[in-house]
Amino acid sequence: MNQQSAKQILSIVKIGGNIVDDDSALDSFLADFNRLAGKKLLVHGGGVMASKMAKQLGIESTMINGRRITDAETLKLVTMVYAGWINKSIVASLQKIGCNAIGLSGADANVIPAKKRLPVPIDFGYVGDPNPSSINSTFIANLIESEAIPVFCAITHDGNGSLLNTNADTIAYSLATALSSVYQTQLFYCFEKEGVLQDVNNPDSLIATMNRAEYEAYKKAGIIADGMIPKLDNSFNAIEQGVSEVRILHAKNLLNGKGTVLIA
Amino acid sequence: MNQQSAKQILSIVKIGGNIVDDDSALDSFLADFNRLAGKKLLVHGGGVMASKMAKQLGIESTMINGRRITDAETLKLVTMVYAGWINKSIVASLQKIGCNAIGLSGADANVIPAKKRLPVPIDFGYVGDPNPSSINSTFIANLIESEAIPVFCAITHDGNGSLLNTNADTIAYSLATALSSVYQTQLFYCFEKEGVLQDVNNPDSLIATMNRAEYEAYKKAGIIADGMIPKLDNSFNAIEQGVSEVRILHAKNLLNGKGTVLIA
Repeated sequence: MNQQSAKQILSIVKIGGNIVDDDSALDSFLADFNRLAGKKLLVHGGGVMASKMAKQLGIESTMINGRRITDAETLKLVTMVYAGWINKSIVASLQKIGCNAIGLSGADANVIPAKKRLPVPIDFGYVGDPNPSSINSTFIANLIESEAIPVFCAITHDGNGSLLNTNADTIAYSLATALSSVYQTQLFYCFEKEGVLQDVNNPDSLIATMNRAEYEAYKKAGIIADGMIPKLDNSFNAIEQGVSEVRILHAKNLLNGKGTVLIA
Repeated sequence: MNQQSAKQILSIVKIGGNIVDDDSALDSFLADFNRLAGKKLLVHGGGVMASKMAKQLGIESTMINGRRITDAETLKLVTMVYAGWINKSIVASLQKIGCNAIGLSGADANVIPAKKRLPVPIDFGYVGDPNPSSINSTFIANLIESEAIPVFCAITHDGNGSLLNTNADTIAYSLATALSSVYQTQLFYCFEKEGVLQDVNNPDSLIATMNRAEYEAYKKAGIIADGMIPKLDNSFNAIEQGVSEVRILHAKNLLNGKGTVLIA
């Protein structure tokens, strides 16, 4: 038996902000997540709710390439929404159905230290990028082995006292990569579409499998664009760094796995 | 050696909302908390910041006997402020100075299940009271033994999907009582006054020690009143339920211990 096959499978499931913002879709997804067999952890977004709360507080939301410019006021807002309301609501909902969830930001037990993004060419403010090699895999694995189910929000810290707004897809990719030293990791990006589509308005145009070369060709042809690009960049990086499988799929298909499977 | 003396000391430190709301006092307190020798955990309030944020959001704050009436909107607000911004900011600040903090609400890993308060005689809404005997002491002790420092916000859950706003003093008392089965627990209530005062406007009128009979006499004479009563009720309950020492003191005196010592 080689080392790879001796490892237990860990499913890293990321759920997008549009599902998080829809109570009934979220409940249904959390029930499926609870049913998902084996070891697992959850990463959640929340951008839709953050934008709504920003409006209520009179804070302007500025997005560049789908990423939020995070000044001090916006950092406070996203920390309240992601680490506070969404994270604890998800934890309470999972506890209700017998799933022993524990909510974490990257600052907690220093599980995901990150580096503030350089202010050039665009100053995103308090935005950070984690380095998979700095993730505290031992602590996370110990939690998982004690039968707790970690639930991560997309807030990290710089180790120097500042919290940092962080892309949830990137957190999921970083966790999958880091934990591949302990587990055979599978990454599921769940959102409100069927997977990667040739035509974003046609759910029947699903690309069932894709390798890096095909991805580059789709990108060149303009078939894959916008917000899907960082998600797929992260995904192929993950595969090249030891993650065994990445699926991009509708949240309702978590258990049947129907969606786009990325291959090496 | 009897069982009591064989137990290690655990300090349960509660920091009040007025200190939390003062950046410089909070930084100074967290530095002292980091220096406090031995095993420890932190519980923080945040009512002052919650009231400010409520105002910003146009949510009315209704207090009865110093307790916040918590409708659905207010529950969302306090969860954002307590479990989100304050908890994660404190964790990041402690991490900066080398203290391996991990933030928790009572919902996380089901550490503090609570019961929603009955709506009579006053309907406080989504307000809960923990039962010390239901606290997951094993999980908390395992975290402490793994050299993590738990930092609790005053949010719990009912196990049925609902988060609950909970008094931070009560959380501290409940943790001290529950963990007295594992540790010799000491409870420190830190706030912006010197301790229990005979005259609330005269810091020189400190009551240095007090037992339950003296407390009842002070209460009867109207010398102790208002917000101090639930704090002292909790404190004497704690002592009667196995907590070895309770001190009520100014946050700046955490390390020298100067304040009011409650005795059996």
